[in-house]
Amino acid sequence: MTLNSMSLRSLDMPAESEPELLCILGTGDLGRSLGERLLQSGFRVVYGSRRLHGGSPLLSDPRVTSHEAAAQSANIIFVCVHREHYEFLATMRNHLQGKVREKIEKKQQLVPKAAVVKGLNTLSAWALQNGLLAGKQVYLCGDSAEAKQAVAQMATKLGLSVLDKGSLSAARELEDFPLKLFPEWRLPLSVALGLTAFFFFYLLIRDVIYAYVEKKDEISYRIMVSLANKVFPIVALIMLSLCYLPGAIAAFLQLYRGTKYSRFPNWLDRWMVSRKQMGLVALGFAFLHVTYTFIIPIRYAVRHKLISRIKKNKTTPFRFDNTEAWGTDSFVTLGILGFFLFVLLGITSLPSVGGSLSWREFNFIQSKLGHLTLFICTAHGYVYGWNKFLLPSTYKWYTPPGFMLCLIVPSVVLVLKGILLLPCVDRTLTLIRQGWERTQPKNSKPHLE
Amino acid sequence: MTLNSMSLRSLDMPAESEPELLCILGTGDLGRSLGERLLQSGFRVVYGSRRLHGGSPLLSDPRVTSHEAAAQSANIIFVCVHREHYEFLATMRNHLQGKVREKIEKKQQLVPKAAVVKGLNTLSAWALQNGLLAGKQVYLCGDSAEAKQAVAQMATKLGLSVLDKGSLSAARELEDFPLKLFPEWRLPLSVALGLTAFFFFYLLIRDVIYAYVEKKDEISYRIMVSLANKVFPIVALIMLSLCYLPGAIAAFLQLYRGTKYSRFPNWLDRWMVSRKQMGLVALGFAFLHVTYTFIIPIRYAVRHKLISRIKKNKTTPFRFDNTEAWGTDSFVTLGILGFFLFVLLGITSLPSVGGSLSWREFNFIQSKLGHLTLFICTAHGYVYGWNKFLLPSTYKWYTPPGFMLCLIVPSVVLVLKGILLLPCVDRTLTLIRQGWERTQPKNSKPHLE
Amino acid sequence: MTLNSMSLRSLDMPAESEPELLCILGTGDLGRSLGERLLQSGFRVVYGSRRLHGGSPLLSDPRVTSHEAAAQSANIIFVCVHREHYEFLATMRNHLQGKVREKIEKKQQLVPKAAVVKGLNTLSAWALQNGLLAGKQVYLCGDSAEAKQAVAQMATKLGLSVLDKGSLSAARELEDFPLKLFPEWRLPLSVALGLTAFFFFYLLIRDVIYAYVEKKDEISYRIMVSLANKVFPIVALIMLSLCYLPGAIAAFLQLYRGTKYSRFPNWLDRWMVSRKQMGLVALGFAFLHVTYTFIIPIRYAVRHKLISRIKKNKTTPFRFDNTEAWGTDSFVTLGILGFFLFVLLGITSLPSVGGSLSWREFNFIQSKLGHLTLFICTAHGYVYGWNKFLLPSTYKWYTPPGFMLCLIVPSVVLVLKGILLLPCVDRTLTLIRQGWERTQPKNSKPHLE
Repeated sequence: MTLNSMSLRSLDMPAESEPELLCILGTGDLGRSLGERLLQSGFRVVYGSRRLHGGSPLLSDPRVTSHEAAAQSANIIFVCVHREHYEFLATMRNHLQGKVREKIEKKQQLVPKAAVVKGLNTLSAWALQNGLLAGKQVYLCGDSAEAKQAVAQMATKLGLSVLDKGSLSAARELEDFPLKLFPEWRLPLSVALGLTAFFFFYLLIRDVIYAYVEKKDEISYRIMVSLANKVFPIVALIMLSLCYLPGAIAAFLQLYRGTKYSRFPNWLDRWMVSRKQMGLVALGFAFLHVTYTFIIPIRYAVRHKLISRIKKNKTTPFRFDNTEAWGTDSFVTLGILGFFLFVLLGITSLPSVGGSLSWREFNFIQSKLGHLTLFICTAHGYVYGWNKFLLPSTYKWYTPPGFMLCLIVPSVVLVLKGILLLPCVDRTLTLIRQGWERTQPKNSKPHLE
Repeated sequence: MTLNSMSLRSLDMPAESEPELLCILGTGDLGRSLGERLLQSGFRVVYGSRRLHGGSPLLSDPRVTSHEAAAQSANIIFVCVHREHYEFLATMRNHLQGKVREKIEKKQQLVPKAAVVKGLNTLSAWALQNGLLAGKQVYLCGDSAEAKQAVAQMATKLGLSVLDKGSLSAARELEDFPLKLFPEWRLPLSVALGLTAFFFFYLLIRDVIYAYVEKKDEISYRIMVSLANKVFPIVALIMLSLCYLPGAIAAFLQLYRGTKYSRFPNWLDRWMVSRKQMGLVALGFAFLHVTYTFIIPIRYAVRHKLISRIKKNKTTPFRFDNTEAWGTDSFVTLGILGFFLFVLLGITSLPSVGGSLSWREFNFIQSKLGHLTLFICTAHGYVYGWNKFLLPSTYKWYTPPGFMLCLIVPSVVLVLKGILLLPCVDRTLTLIRQGWERTQPKNSKPHLE
Repeated sequence: MTLNSMSLRSLDMPAESEPELLCILGTGDLGRSLGERLLQSGFRVVYGSRRLHGGSPLLSDPRVTSHEAAAQSANIIFVCVHREHYEFLATMRNHLQGKVREKIEKKQQLVPKAAVVKGLNTLSAWALQNGLLAGKQVYLCGDSAEAKQAVAQMATKLGLSVLDKGSLSAARELEDFPLKLFPEWRLPLSVALGLTAFFFFYLLIRDVIYAYVEKKDEISYRIMVSLANKVFPIVALIMLSLCYLPGAIAAFLQLYRGTKYSRFPNWLDRWMVSRKQMGLVALGFAFLHVTYTFIIPIRYAVRHKLISRIKKNKTTPFRFDNTEAWGTDSFVTLGILGFFLFVLLGITSLPSVGGSLSWREFNFIQSKLGHLTLFICTAHGYVYGWNKFLLPSTYKWYTPPGFMLCLIVPSVVLVLKGILLLPCVDRTLTLIRQGWERTQPKNSKPHLE
């Protein structure tokens, strides 16, 4: 994710030439820090400032002149002023012609003749002052390769890692990159929030309010841990299955249409693009569920229940129920294995780990191991309720319990995936993905591209 | 792990020249998606296709011509056809002479005159369509630096991160990179699987079958959690010691031979190369062990045992055994500290974290902290069985318990490492590693290189 | 963090020219391994050696000559000898003039005329032999861009990732990079160690020694788990608040001075630079605390206490205390949520994850989410002692309990941060950070830069 490019002009110049002169427009904190850093790295710097007196301790420095004078003297100009003051750039059009201009904000249209290189947005003045630049990433976009190389060389000398993001046109999706605030997480977090709110109130009614109404039991304290420890795994499992549902839908769409050349609907594309974030949100909820589960035995309410039970049935021996033992232990084992695989999926989502895997390895983990995780976690849910499905007491006020609602989406996804694994279906889908099309208006025989 | 290289030809051309014309051979999904992406980034594209009619919606596009016509018009050619159709490249030999050819599969010998650049294997058509290219890695190998730069520039404009993997000859170990499936994990995973199977059946016989045969106790439910929670820590500890054993063996080999200029045996080299993966597999087993341990108190069987014990000995006071308290607490403390250090080792194995450490820091953590982890985990095992070694009841059917077998390899490794730390041994080994040799056939005195 | 730079000389030469001749001075293990690797990658190699006979199996190779002869024949020279033997370089001054010299140790002044490129320090001979080079990072510093490009091209052919660290002067802070041993961690670890030692002895006196003196109770076994599980969370919370305290102090300094153009005191700068490591150390202690907490129910001492309590109060029913239930559950919930957010903070500290976030996202997580984590963990501490603050028995020997001391620093930080969030204060601080200054000696009105 980095670029270190050398300026090619150094080939023509002797190895130890006079340091390059750079111009910084703006004597604010950023301009001043950048200037100091460049001076330390061996460049010569001239500042341009609106005000030639007052305030900033820098302005008594002989290197400070007017904007126009500074811009004329150097070949590379850094613009370090706030957005509000950009109109002055238009007045300097003549002075900036032919220069490489490093812009902190993009205003290409003000000075069209200069080769604009946008970048360095991610530097802070404090980081510049304290030398916390080693390895720090900056982005450069620009249409002039030569200009970008000149700026990149400078950034490299400061110890920065430079990422070339292509031309200004290709950089449209990165224009406000330093200002973006988790755009790709908004859909998954909204879905998670909605599910959490729904199940929280659903279980609140079914557990706490039902107990109060029907049995006059005050168990509101259960909201914080017991209720939470039902909502979290439910949301986690549904979110995990929502990761794999669009893939199955897409496959069936292709089978139905008999071709892969039609584009997917927009909602499906948008869903598929956010699968990674959905999985990570699901992992977060699973982590909370696991932590809440470990904490159960040290809760006051649990110890009280245990002790009361012992006292109540003092003389009755506690017959060992083998089925119950198998049930609890398999329930717990499935949960642990499912969580372990889930954590593995999360680790391979880290940028550095995912980047070190080949495409086949990444696909193996995210697809095969991912579906296995979904299968094990769904089984964990089924074992949880294995003997509750037919008990009348499960259905309070004729509503299904939370875990039953929770198991719907995962079961659907697993059934769809099972169908897709059948040999006949799988064969047709592979053909379609290699280019085969079911309907041929012009040619009579199927062709492979 | 990236390269962004600029094409040097842009220096000679004015900054805003006519967009470059590229040729794509193949109008399948990949070719079409790549073409659309290149068009969006400002290039001009001409397609070459075997069939000039039918099927693909692209083929009505006026930019589609025959392969030969397309190849003639452009300087850079992308070959996006399936492996089966490569013979046509041979027929196009004349047309491809002197061009830079981007090949999805390497077939240099078909067209020797063209400068072949192999790469872009890791792109999928869907990623191309949906713009999921930012930061995505592609690999380029080629013998012509100029050709690679031209291709790299293009890839950069698409927003890709390009990794230069050197010449075609140096890239031999990367030829099938997109298709490799965890080659370096196969030895560690096989070893782990073998150990797991062995200890599972060994403990099954000793615990479950023995109890059934000797005491008519049906405790098969214990398989899932109790048995698993013995197998996992045993395998984890043995795998961790297998990480450090080859280093000790290598050191003793050097001491025995008196020189470091002889190569190690192949099996030792192979073992040493897979140490990192062995450690990570061991960490996975340790994680499972820890999770199973946390889950113990909420198991039905455990609660039953606790309650039954209370009911059985209703009147007998439970005398507090101070030794037992110290024993359990130190056992638990050693386990927690050992796991904490183990997790630290795992975190430094992440590519980005390991890459940010200096060689000395990395060595400190992996070697010093690593051996400390092994020591603490072995002590954890010894404290577990501290009073069981001499009890006759431990040896069911005259077989040693699982933990005793488990402690053999770690103890051996720690003893060897202890010997290597002795001043006399350490001094000799340091000399050998600096180049000293014990036997000098030609010269009579030892020399340092 | 990588550079792959092509040698520009290849443009002038035909694509498949005669392999470049390289010279390696030194036939030790490193020189020999490097030479073999270069041979495999298609270069030609000539060795220079002090001794032309004996010892190393390499020296019978016809490619080995004297240092002077070897250096004369090639354009690029690798110096692979130990520091002690550098004086010979001075004698070779004439031979090395004009060559690019790859130095394993920096000794520029010995041979001033050669273009020195320092780097490749992080390679080990074993890694070279076994091809574990793919993606391995090496650093290059040098004043001659052309020399660096030549060396970088070679390193690339070996499969290395090359990081250009700028000129030799700019590289001063990296001179001993391979030898640095966690310099930025020393302050945080020292602080943590001091706090741990202090609270350990403080609680040892208050809990164990007090119980022995006052009640003749021997509870020394509690040291390992119970005491540890008080010290760890205390140190974790104090370290976490020490992460956010310097920021608050800096803000108040700016408010007091009315300007942002004055530099902070050195101690404050040093403190602010080590905030990240402080947070990670705090996370480590929090992880230990959480693990110790999960292990509580399986400790012998805990089970004994539970069973004894049941036996002692056989006939008394255990009245359910609703307040106690709410108390324990909220205490536990706050702890879990706080730890979850803490882990999120830790994950975003990973180099690859932090590098993929925009500045705004990173700031959102580290600042907003960070202060929220501090708030929740402090609340966790307050709920722990909510009813103990007014009990006389809490104050053993008139000393405050550990948790009370622990809550001082976090509370101070949260109060300071609360003040900074007040609209009037926040508005003034924002103005100051945009450049406003309270005192204007020359101009009468405030100005914005």
